Amino acid sequence: MISITEFIYKNGGNILYLAQHVDAERQVFFMRIEWDLDDFAIDEGKIGEYFATLVADRFSMNWRLHFSNEVPRMALFVSKLSHCFYDILARYEAGEWQVEIPLIISNHADMRTAAGRLGIEYIHLPVTRENRAEQERKQLELLQQHRIDFIVLARYMQILSDDFINNYPDRIINIHHSFLPAFPGARPYHSAHERGVKIIGATSHYANAELDAGPIIEQDVVRVSHEDSVEDMVRKGRDLEKIVLARAIWHHLQHNILVYENRTVVFE
Amino acid sequence: MISITEFIYKNGGNILYLAQHVDAERQVFFMRIEWDLDDFAIDEGKIGEYFATLVADRFSMNWRLHFSNEVPRMALFVSKLSHCFYDILARYEAGEWQVEIPLIISNHADMRTAAGRLGIEYIHLPVTRENRAEQERKQLELLQQHRIDFIVLARYMQILSDDFINNYPDRIINIHHSFLPAFPGARPYHSAHERGVKIIGATSHYANAELDAGPIIEQDVVRVSHEDSVEDMVRKGRDLEKIVLARAIWHHLQHNILVYENRTVVFE
Amino acid sequence: MISITEFIYKNGGNILYLAQHVDAERQVFFMRIEWDLDDFAIDEGKIGEYFATLVADRFSMNWRLHFSNEVPRMALFVSKLSHCFYDILARYEAGEWQVEIPLIISNHADMRTAAGRLGIEYIHLPVTRENRAEQERKQLELLQQHRIDFIVLARYMQILSDDFINNYPDRIINIHHSFLPAFPGARPYHSAHERGVKIIGATSHYANAELDAGPIIEQDVVRVSHEDSVEDMVRKGRDLEKIVLARAIWHHLQHNILVYENRTVVFE
Amino acid sequence: MISITEFIYKNGGNILYLAQHVDAERQVFFMRIEWDLDDFAIDEGKIGEYFATLVADRFSMNWRLHFSNEVPRMALFVSKLSHCFYDILARYEAGEWQVEIPLIISNHADMRTAAGRLGIEYIHLPVTRENRAEQERKQLELLQQHRIDFIVLARYMQILSDDFINNYPDRIINIHHSFLPAFPGARPYHSAHERGVKIIGATSHYANAELDAGPIIEQDVVRVSHEDSVEDMVRKGRDLEKIVLARAIWHHLQHNILVYENRTVVFE
Repeated sequence: MISITEFIYKNGGNILYLAQHVDAERQVFFMRIEWDLDDFAIDEGKIGEYFATLVADRFSMNWRLHFSNEVPRMALFVSKLSHCFYDILARYEAGEWQVEIPLIISNHADMRTAAGRLGIEYIHLPVTRENRAEQERKQLELLQQHRIDFIVLARYMQILSDDFINNYPDRIINIHHSFLPAFPGARPYHSAHERGVKIIGATSHYANAELDAGPIIEQDVVRVSHEDSVEDMVRKGRDLEKIVLARAIWHHLQHNILVYENRTVVFE
Repeated sequence: MISITEFIYKNGGNILYLAQHVDAERQVFFMRIEWDLDDFAIDEGKIGEYFATLVADRFSMNWRLHFSNEVPRMALFVSKLSHCFYDILARYEAGEWQVEIPLIISNHADMRTAAGRLGIEYIHLPVTRENRAEQERKQLELLQQHRIDFIVLARYMQILSDDFINNYPDRIINIHHSFLPAFPGARPYHSAHERGVKIIGATSHYANAELDAGPIIEQDVVRVSHEDSVEDMVRKGRDLEKIVLARAIWHHLQHNILVYENRTVVFE
Repeated sequence: MISITEFIYKNGGNILYLAQHVDAERQVFFMRIEWDLDDFAIDEGKIGEYFATLVADRFSMNWRLHFSNEVPRMALFVSKLSHCFYDILARYEAGEWQVEIPLIISNHADMRTAAGRLGIEYIHLPVTRENRAEQERKQLELLQQHRIDFIVLARYMQILSDDFINNYPDRIINIHHSFLPAFPGARPYHSAHERGVKIIGATSHYANAELDAGPIIEQDVVRVSHEDSVEDMVRKGRDLEKIVLARAIWHHLQHNILVYENRTVVFE
Repeated sequence: MISITEFIYKNGGNILYLAQHVDAERQVFFMRIEWDLDDFAIDEGKIGEYFATLVADRFSMNWRLHFSNEVPRMALFVSKLSHCFYDILARYEAGEWQVEIPLIISNHADMRTAAGRLGIEYIHLPVTRENRAEQERKQLELLQQHRIDFIVLARYMQILSDDFINNYPDRIINIHHSFLPAFPGARPYHSAHERGVKIIGATSHYANAELDAGPIIEQDVVRVSHEDSVEDMVRKGRDLEKIVLARAIWHHLQHNILVYENRTVVFE
């Protein structure tokens, strides 16, 4: 830890943000650090090499280096439900995020028009049990063609194969419409209503091989009562889902998230 | 519904509170109504009979009649964890609730002194796998002797038999230290930590035959992060538990809760 | 109260929803009731007259009658900030609400394109201290031409005259970016940061003559910490604002809100 | 910053916790660091001196050094309202906090018995407009006699003089029963009800010369509706107040709080 801050200071970097976390039990140390390159002695293109040689390799660190002028490229997978989709497009159009969205993939054609307005390519790839493998191949090709950095499943409703997911480890963000681990899988609002819970939730997480079991990024909840029908829960849940998904995307874009052992460290 | 309010008005009752709920799906109607007896034409002792004959029997209503000067008698079951116990005693001593607590039953002797200060009988009944049936018989006797109306399991940590529970249907309030149905059973904070959730919760519910599966009365949550160890969750959870349990007791004492099909209507 | 439900039942109406509230202190009674007209004995066009004659006039009730197939007409006032605007348009496009939005008025031209996509007329009326009275006259004309039922100020940022507001009593919904009554007026996030609060909020309310002092419809909050700069508060606040405004619009459209003495009864 | 961690590492200290905050606007840097003294090269009694000489003086740091086996001494000021008082005593008896409470001062005699059970000295000092200065002199004497480190005003309801407060800068914790800066001063629940807010709150803060205007430590809120009378707000607020006050005390005891420019950094 000394070495990281030393590495920055001694080379003229001005630290703008520094957050740390010690997992005492597992003896793992996490750090997120931002610094100003204005007077930094090492060229941008060389920082990674120097850091590896002088610091990271000695301590067997896992590390990633990002530059704040990078614009990550995000693909959106959508189905028929539009609330998360519209919310993301609105933020995109308003410039809330530093991101490029060159590609939307959907198993339905419904939202082609809205995508078109913003000049985003919208690919309609209907998925059935039979053609899933083939469609995933096409999806992966499209993702590569568009040099996609990470994927957002905005209520996509289709299960992705492990193979597909393994191409984007910790880079596929899903939104699940329950307070996980309660009510994984299909129709969580129906289950929540049936169980008579007094609070419902939404969970954004990185997709992994097990359904709705990946590392949780963000959760939030809203109070319900006996007055709320399933439809009321769906309505209240929509707003939760879009906010919880947007927060996850924002943290991902800020490189605030470190994943380990199926959990996340989210520096705020 | 007309008939209930008519019954009250025509006999000179002044309605103070009226709440209703229609379960449109199941075609069930719920009502909670309070009225002033000052000018009521029917004697207190006769209201039930008149109401049954003139209103309830005709519509096959399930109904209960309570008088606001009744003081329900509550028994407390405790173990070694003291936060809910102390919180309840403090409210009792401060007169927050209209309740009598004549009896505390525990499988440990730890909190005898605190009970003694308020003049509450404290019975130490250690429970083992072998003597459970016998101890439950003693417990039931004690509950009867003290004319107990309802039981609060303030982190009691022992599983009660179905037989025992059936003696007090919808009259045993339990607090579970998770956001049910997530993490039922033992050590929910450990499971929550392991799963990496971003929010933890507590749930108060009526005990029924299935563990942690009875009708939910109240839930609340608190935000956690990667910084929170299991111990931090336990600490934050303690405050949740005592508040969520106290709210359930309060609603029970106000007769705000109607149970049906393993769910609750809680009129506020 | 008997009379209202009697009026409905005796004429063959099936009650779908009924909520009541008694303000015991002020001796005011509030009710919101929905019923099915399928077998109702009185013609739609006559219900109001019959209800007035047979029920309301006798008890000097204030009452309103709405039919669930009515589609209210809403005008949107916007300025340069787009998050509430986009959120409303997305809900409109997705059909979340039963509403018609024929008119958007703005003191800036920025969002004309987005409005145009949905075929909504967008009128650019720059407001200065000098021309305010004249522009308000034009606004009122436009509102009349488009037969507007209620107005939503989606971060409009301009102060409306009392005269203007009096044309739409309890029909102008504003969103203020603070937890009122804390931080009324300009730059509430700056004030919140300066004061060092640990929670920020947003408030939707009906506009009245006094700035940010009208009857509150809905509020919500989000936690902040010393880590949050004013910019972070603005970012977190944006999501609050759009949700809190959308909830108010939804309640208004459902006719859930009754206003009296500068407060609201909001039936859920 | 390098120097602090270097100072610890080079002398054999093992860092257990490290949190930092940069106020970029004011160019102030905050750090809270915990380390293990087991193999530390410098004697406990000398750490302060060495740290000052080698690190702090060079950078003109403001710093405090605490040892985790210290048991701070807290005085409680109470009046007639007992919920915060009982909650604190319960935590004290249960051993939730590492603290000593040798002294309770009250302008009423009501809670003498409860204090006596735990062997805490209870001094009854009735305060009037006329005798306030004299009573404060006695209070200060008592605080000195009992070597009090910090004071908790558990709904004390009396205004303290600036002189008194200046004796314990950032060491008098008050709980105010509103979401400050909304509703400072007397009867905030009445004001909240009058204003028709949809959420009420509680605020714990360090007392300073201006009433209810000191640096905020913690806030929390609970939802209310038109159904809630002032009495309901008082009831819901009681639970908020005790939790929000307890969190502030906990953070104070953990030395998590740094105060500057009337705001707090609270490291969690």
